[in-house]
Amino acid sequence: MLVEIADKEFAEQRLQEVTESLTRGMYVQARRQLHNLPAWDVALLLESSPPKARAIIWQLVDADEHGDILEELSEEVQKSIIRQMAPEKLAAATEGMDTDDLAYVLRGLPEQVYQEVLKSMDEQDRHRAEQALSYAEETAGSMMNTDTITLRPDVTIDVVLRYLRLKGELPEATDKLYVVSREDKFIGEIGITRLLTVDPSRLVSDVMDQEVQGIPADMDETEVAKLFERQDWISAPVIDEDNRLLGRITIDDVVDIIREDAQHSMLSMAGLDDDEDTFAPVWTSAKRRSVWLGVNLITALLAAMVSSLFEDILAQMAILAILNTIVPSMGGIAGSQTLTLVIRGMALGHIGASNQRWLIGKELAIGALNGVIWALLIAAVVAIWKQDLLIGAIIAFAMMANLLAAGLAGVTVPLILKKFDIDPALAGGVILTTVTDVVGIFAFLGTATLLLS
Amino acid sequence: MLVEIADKEFAEQRLQEVTESLTRGMYVQARRQLHNLPAWDVALLLESSPPKARAIIWQLVDADEHGDILEELSEEVQKSIIRQMAPEKLAAATEGMDTDDLAYVLRGLPEQVYQEVLKSMDEQDRHRAEQALSYAEETAGSMMNTDTITLRPDVTIDVVLRYLRLKGELPEATDKLYVVSREDKFIGEIGITRLLTVDPSRLVSDVMDQEVQGIPADMDETEVAKLFERQDWISAPVIDEDNRLLGRITIDDVVDIIREDAQHSMLSMAGLDDDEDTFAPVWTSAKRRSVWLGVNLITALLAAMVSSLFEDILAQMAILAILNTIVPSMGGIAGSQTLTLVIRGMALGHIGASNQRWLIGKELAIGALNGVIWALLIAAVVAIWKQDLLIGAIIAFAMMANLLAAGLAGVTVPLILKKFDIDPALAGGVILTTVTDVVGIFAFLGTATLLLS
Repeated sequence: MLVEIADKEFAEQRLQEVTESLTRGMYVQARRQLHNLPAWDVALLLESSPPKARAIIWQLVDADEHGDILEELSEEVQKSIIRQMAPEKLAAATEGMDTDDLAYVLRGLPEQVYQEVLKSMDEQDRHRAEQALSYAEETAGSMMNTDTITLRPDVTIDVVLRYLRLKGELPEATDKLYVVSREDKFIGEIGITRLLTVDPSRLVSDVMDQEVQGIPADMDETEVAKLFERQDWISAPVIDEDNRLLGRITIDDVVDIIREDAQHSMLSMAGLDDDEDTFAPVWTSAKRRSVWLGVNLITALLAAMVSSLFEDILAQMAILAILNTIVPSMGGIAGSQTLTLVIRGMALGHIGASNQRWLIGKELAIGALNGVIWALLIAAVVAIWKQDLLIGAIIAFAMMANLLAAGLAGVTVPLILKKFDIDPALAGGVILTTVTDVVGIFAFLGTATLLLS
Repeated sequence: MLVEIADKEFAEQRLQEVTESLTRGMYVQARRQLHNLPAWDVALLLESSPPKARAIIWQLVDADEHGDILEELSEEVQKSIIRQMAPEKLAAATEGMDTDDLAYVLRGLPEQVYQEVLKSMDEQDRHRAEQALSYAEETAGSMMNTDTITLRPDVTIDVVLRYLRLKGELPEATDKLYVVSREDKFIGEIGITRLLTVDPSRLVSDVMDQEVQGIPADMDETEVAKLFERQDWISAPVIDEDNRLLGRITIDDVVDIIREDAQHSMLSMAGLDDDEDTFAPVWTSAKRRSVWLGVNLITALLAAMVSSLFEDILAQMAILAILNTIVPSMGGIAGSQTLTLVIRGMALGHIGASNQRWLIGKELAIGALNGVIWALLIAAVVAIWKQDLLIGAIIAFAMMANLLAAGLAGVTVPLILKKFDIDPALAGGVILTTVTDVVGIFAFLGTATLLLS
């Protein structure tokens, strides 16, 4: 298929055309247009469509394209589609799928459907599926494919070359061949480019790279991704606890993990799921998001209760009520800047026991520095706006205190959460806001009560 | 070098050891320990260290490791280090660097130092550097390397194989050889694995894949990354406007772009720079972050001014002052959930003219649904806590109104910003908060004024 690089708009235009045919109800035309789209584009179209349109598009797509398209879909959308497919159609669609994709699809099925799909598969696929499902989700085992090419150490490169020529096509992203013993133990690897440049009369065991270790099948996928990034790998072997070669992981699957992991923090900080589907039905989305709103309502009520402690002075001076939101809001912003940096730093492995103290010191210093600047400014604004120097001084003090608290909480909250194995990206923001709200209100209204009443 | 996979803690332990030697001032020992660390780990150590420690580590590292380490560093940290290096040392460090990394380093230099470094380079490197710098930042041209292997169409595969064997080692991540005409025009490519499996007596022109187009040198790096993800490429050719082959892009550089792009939104939403260095000096960090705090102070003041319009009723009833923060806060949370999803959807190319209206409808429906739930709940809480049914009803109405506003603004604000070519991740949050603050306060205090005064 011709790759349309020079004309990016061309691809967008084709997608637009399908959408138009669909909205006009011209399904025959839409079917033909869909037939001409690569699987990747159909997947994009499905992910960009509301639930009803998704069901229609899926019915218009050629059944023998189903497998390729399913492979390209994100988890949420994939799930919503396979739940509507008949088991035997699903079994047909998964035929010839990469092992890792196959496991991914099967994991999304309810137990009963899963059994039916398994029954509809041929012997070989069923075996492959059962094996793939034996590894835990989000591990090296669940990412791997079994399409490795293996060599014995005691043959010559010439034999290998003839074997490959006989074989015809090699699996995609094959940059290395793996050398295994008679017991299938992984003992080394040879790069494809090395095969081309080395003297063909040499033995595999002479030429292979023995300093490589396989990836244990139970390694976490995020760790696998880090190794790939660090070593600039294109593929890597996966082994079991006895060092037996099980399969290989390729860079294209790793890229997905890297993008997902990087997005994870952003979504978590808004209380959203990694696989949150922008076009999910209203009810599904509302239910998910309400949890987060509930948590935040408790925070807001807590802040209101703190304000409530100062009801007397608020009743005396409306100006305090008006200014009461400024200091908590600035603290929340400053704190979330620190929090975001610390969460990213943790993900990159930059923050450890050796530099935590330095980091707290630094963030406190930034809080102090910015505290002084914005305290002076807000004091000036209030003094001019409300003609009240004392209240200006009070809000300046509160600002200073809260920006210091924000810096401290911004570093310590995620560190403490991590110690308790709680995801700082998910819970950090709420706790931080609670801290900056409470400190901000206490510092402002408390000082005001002391000095003004 | 042995890749220590099985023992992840081993790597961490070694890093810990260096840190300990450094803090104890045992520099001879630290130098030896650093010497045994791979470049990637030294880079990690530098990125995890405060400015002073960075300078010390850099002096302890072998000078001939400098180049490899610089390549692994993030932009900010790299800049802070090369600014302190003497031009001739820098020239030595960049010797043999990949073209894209070389351009990256040189771009970070002040004009005068840059000229001096250029002078200290040998002829070949200088030429390479000048060529690499001729492409704009963040384009395919600035990402590419010039280490391509090119073939003529009219030779046999056998000749190619003999040529490669003569050449010895091939550049890393070489999965394809490129076929060019006598005028250096790109006409096709052959996968390395294909070379191994095809009949050696055939001509390159018979075997090559002609349906591939090169990537134009001025294509944006984010577009390049999308193409790689979409096509599962490991490398791809880069061409100029006359279709002449300039070089190639490899997946390891693309992975960096994918991670950076995915992190970009998260950092922007907190008003942080993409290259924000967690361990930068206090002054640098404070200066950068204060801009964002300033913008948010304006938002907070705006909210205070809106409250100020209702000074009369606030003076009469302190309870309104206490509850005044709840509705804006919930609106901010709901709005930022929608905003986050829309920003991600835009980055993935899911949101276009065809589904915007559906999305606004959906988010309004979610706002209504969650609005009802949390309106009823907050009404009940207020009715019980403050024994005031009417104020419960007022806050319920304001909650409803603000969650609808949040849903609407969460979709429309980023869409409008994008139309004006403003980064929604950077500016979206501030504008959204302003909307939910203003609507929240107006709805609550305004209704209270109408009904209670």
